[in-house]
Amino acid sequence: MIFNITQPDDAIKKAAIDKIDNLNKPKGSLGRLETLALQICQIQQTLSPSLHHPCHLLFGADHGIEREKVSPSPREVTWQQMINFTHGKGGVNVLCRQHGFDLKIIDVGVDHDLSSCKDIINRKVALGTANFLYVPAMTCEQYEQALAAGAEMADACHREGSNIIAIGEMGVANTSAASVWMSLLANIPLEACVGAGSGLGSSGIRHKYEILSKAIYNFMSGSDGAGKPYHPSHNKPSPEDIIHHFGGFEMVAALGAMLKAAEQHTIILVDGFIMTACALAAKVLYPSVSSYMIFCHRGDESGHRRLLESMDARPLLDLGLRLGEGTGALCAFPLVDSAVRIVNEMGCFSETHVTKYF
Amino acid sequence: MIFNITQPDDAIKKAAIDKIDNLNKPKGSLGRLETLALQICQIQQTLSPSLHHPCHLLFGADHGIEREKVSPSPREVTWQQMINFTHGKGGVNVLCRQHGFDLKIIDVGVDHDLSSCKDIINRKVALGTANFLYVPAMTCEQYEQALAAGAEMADACHREGSNIIAIGEMGVANTSAASVWMSLLANIPLEACVGAGSGLGSSGIRHKYEILSKAIYNFMSGSDGAGKPYHPSHNKPSPEDIIHHFGGFEMVAALGAMLKAAEQHTIILVDGFIMTACALAAKVLYPSVSSYMIFCHRGDESGHRRLLESMDARPLLDLGLRLGEGTGALCAFPLVDSAVRIVNEMGCFSETHVTKYF
Repeated sequence: MIFNITQPDDAIKKAAIDKIDNLNKPKGSLGRLETLALQICQIQQTLSPSLHHPCHLLFGADHGIEREKVSPSPREVTWQQMINFTHGKGGVNVLCRQHGFDLKIIDVGVDHDLSSCKDIINRKVALGTANFLYVPAMTCEQYEQALAAGAEMADACHREGSNIIAIGEMGVANTSAASVWMSLLANIPLEACVGAGSGLGSSGIRHKYEILSKAIYNFMSGSDGAGKPYHPSHNKPSPEDIIHHFGGFEMVAALGAMLKAAEQHTIILVDGFIMTACALAAKVLYPSVSSYMIFCHRGDESGHRRLLESMDARPLLDLGLRLGEGTGALCAFPLVDSAVRIVNEMGCFSETHVTKYF
Repeated sequence: MIFNITQPDDAIKKAAIDKIDNLNKPKGSLGRLETLALQICQIQQTLSPSLHHPCHLLFGADHGIEREKVSPSPREVTWQQMINFTHGKGGVNVLCRQHGFDLKIIDVGVDHDLSSCKDIINRKVALGTANFLYVPAMTCEQYEQALAAGAEMADACHREGSNIIAIGEMGVANTSAASVWMSLLANIPLEACVGAGSGLGSSGIRHKYEILSKAIYNFMSGSDGAGKPYHPSHNKPSPEDIIHHFGGFEMVAALGAMLKAAEQHTIILVDGFIMTACALAAKVLYPSVSSYMIFCHRGDESGHRRLLESMDARPLLDLGLRLGEGTGALCAFPLVDSAVRIVNEMGCFSETHVTKYF
């Protein structure tokens, strides 16, 4: 699947800066709200930006690597929480209601039959990925299928009139997959990428690190059944190889949603550690995608700060959230809304009788 | 004026922690939202907290010290912006509309006749404070009058059914007054308290520092006409002496509003540098007041970080705002609202079919 992602045209930038600088306030005194406003004017190519029909895509899937006890949460929590979300009882539901987001819950690979839940969109690729300690998590066909499901969902939002989406995930053990993506796609030592996930102690983190380290070794040496040994001196795995081999279906679906959203000039609210790893994958494949991203929250997962730094991303919030589901992205929405309102609603020095001040 | 401020009863704390820990999420995974929720349960003495009729009090006044060229903004900006606010065109107006705050604009000492503006509540104490480089900024009577005006406004909100208020200010040169309060009330060297205000360069900051340093010397030695020399070895100025001598009317009004709000168990959203200095003054006078305060934003003013640290306050946001008006407090409101909604709306493990996980 190919995406046609273009950088927003820079021609409007000067006029947008002029408008923001002439609002009734000392120049720059609205800080991050001003940089956000500028980004949104550029994405939307207008000096009067607006936000319509915000949507939240929540992708759920299970991970083969969970079998290696890399998460303190049992596997069944994935499907139980997916059902819980349909009852409106999750953290994500509360925040979607608060901020007026249309929530779409999508099963792209949960290890449970959820087909009777009419409020869950069924795009299941398989009952969870394979265990990447031994074999690739997914085949190329499965990757394409998950990517297409994500793109389809972003496209559905766009067709409904949305120009801003948030994306979240539910998938026990997905910090493991995200840590490997981070390490291999951003070239950061694995130690710096592995953390507590949903609540591991130090020995649990050590075990997780060892499993992931072994999985990377097996992948690189071809001794994992993929039959494709990589030699640092001759050849390296491609980003796609890494994404297929370690990804979760919910992560690939999120990747597809990000890429399609960027293609359609939709604002993308990027959540915590897992979603930042997906944003990294998106950026590696299509560098222009980052122009459409707003990084919303620095989570508590230990590798998240380093990952954000490697992407030159400064998130809006730092609230110690580590729930996932896209909760950090949703919490930042009102700030994005403020930025848009300020550009449209504040007076400017040429209209009002205020001496231009500093 | 005496306030009767009591610490919230701790008896409910255990039950509130239990409720929050049993929501459908790994324990602690909602980070700051969980600590906020606990604080609000304690303030309101309930496990089902709620927010009603949020009000924003915006106090405006001028400062005698402005005559010493300590601010790059001209004095007239205070009254011009006060009028601009009545037209709904300021940053504060945009954010009040966004978050449903009832905005009250109060003149407690603007150097301009605003009595014909029906949307400005007239509680003018004087046409600005006196210049504290030479004389006390206000008399004891003026202090009481400004304090009472602030308390009256918080009381009006309470009578209208509000249980949460934000407070903001408009007053050219008020970072100078706030810097001196910070230095003398928190015992922090003046250098660490003086910053760029609305936009001084380095030589402007140096000049501001020298003026404020001289003002403190004059105050301590009694050579400023106050006729009350202080000797570090025998006697020190009381907090009230410091507050009267350097304060702005808008700052004292904010102090009165904070103290009255705490007396009535109203949640107080504390804005940036100036309002944190007022919160410091409130805490020095009535230590229990801090239980009712939520610190919302770390502003760009250089002393703000140190001031917050000295008060053990960790603000919710860090967006580089330095506009004042209470904009940082308003931006944090949705997070406070989220905390309340999460306690009330999320499922808990005993009700839902989710395995308790980590």
